[in-house]
Amino acid sequence: MKLIIAIVNDEDVHHLIEDLTKSKFMVTKLATTGGFLKSGNTTLLIGVDDEKVDQVIGIIKDNCETRKQTITSTTPISGAAGVFIPYPVEVRVGGATIFVVDIEKHVKL
Amino acid sequence: MKLIIAIVNDEDVHHLIEDLTKSKFMVTKLATTGGFLKSGNTTLLIGVDDEKVDQVIGIIKDNCETRKQTITSTTPISGAAGVFIPYPVEVRVGGATIFVVDIEKHVKL
Amino acid sequence: MKLIIAIVNDEDVHHLIEDLTKSKFMVTKLATTGGFLKSGNTTLLIGVDDEKVDQVIGIIKDNCETRKQTITSTTPISGAAGVFIPYPVEVRVGGATIFVVDIEKHVKL
Ligand code: NI
Ligand code: NI
Ligand code: NI
Repeated sequence: MKLIIAIVNDEDVHHLIEDLTKSKFMVTKLATTGGFLKSGNTTLLIGVDDEKVDQVIGIIKDNCETRKQTITSTTPISGAAGVFIPYPVEVRVGGATIFVVDIEKHVKL
Repeated sequence: MKLIIAIVNDEDVHHLIEDLTKSKFMVTKLATTGGFLKSGNTTLLIGVDDEKVDQVIGIIKDNCETRKQTITSTTPISGAAGVFIPYPVEVRVGGATIFVVDIEKHVKL
Repeated sequence: MKLIIAIVNDEDVHHLIEDLTKSKFMVTKLATTGGFLKSGNTTLLIGVDDEKVDQVIGIIKDNCETRKQTITSTTPISGAAGVFIPYPVEVRVGGATIFVVDIEKHVKL
């Protein structure tokens, strides 16, 4: 059995957990990092049989891969105090770090 | 040496840590999950000599096993707005997930 | 590859992460323990090549080793209500617990 430690972006957690539980994987959601980041990280612990590690990594990939997103910024234009012109900005969202560790024993009480 | 990762119910943590420290086990308490659950989970990391893994699992079992509890609910009776009649409800409390992982090196500074 | 799980004192985290990233180590900062302690703990996950484990432990040692610190207390003198005389008090700060675990697979998305 393996323990998959996945650190994923908060905004991807909801659908990742949906997809993992739909496929009958047992997910334990740990706490997120402090609130000082607009969007923090969530750590998931997933206990999984050896032969299903790649399937879980695939589901994480589908939900969390780093991608670009265009958001509309309304930062004031420099040099023009008080003037806010909305303009598109490309940001990187998502991303994940995955560690797979061997479990010697797994107990569910 | 082994690392025991135990995810237990918040309400069982206090006495579990008491029992573990009474038996001289070193417990590190990680953060609990977000506040959206009435009662969240706490993750404990316990570094332990190989031959004492079962003793620790036994202590966790004593404190955290899933059990039924009768609570008194005062949810309003449906169809009778404003009428609160206390009645007993059986809920499941406790529970724990335990992963045992091999530690290659342990340092305490 | 190894996973270093380091539980360090909140007040040492900032400069520890600075030093680790300066040396090109990838650090994932997990959540801190609850707010009921004046100064809590932060858990770091550091994925690292086998031959660099000792270097990382050295950096943690440099930043987090338990040491004594003299702080100025202004606790009211007992028996003299309302009288605050600043006086030096020696406290222990820092400290860290490190677990090194073998990683079978590491994926960064
Ligand atoms: Ni949904
Ligand atoms: Ni007690
Ligand atoms: Ni600094």
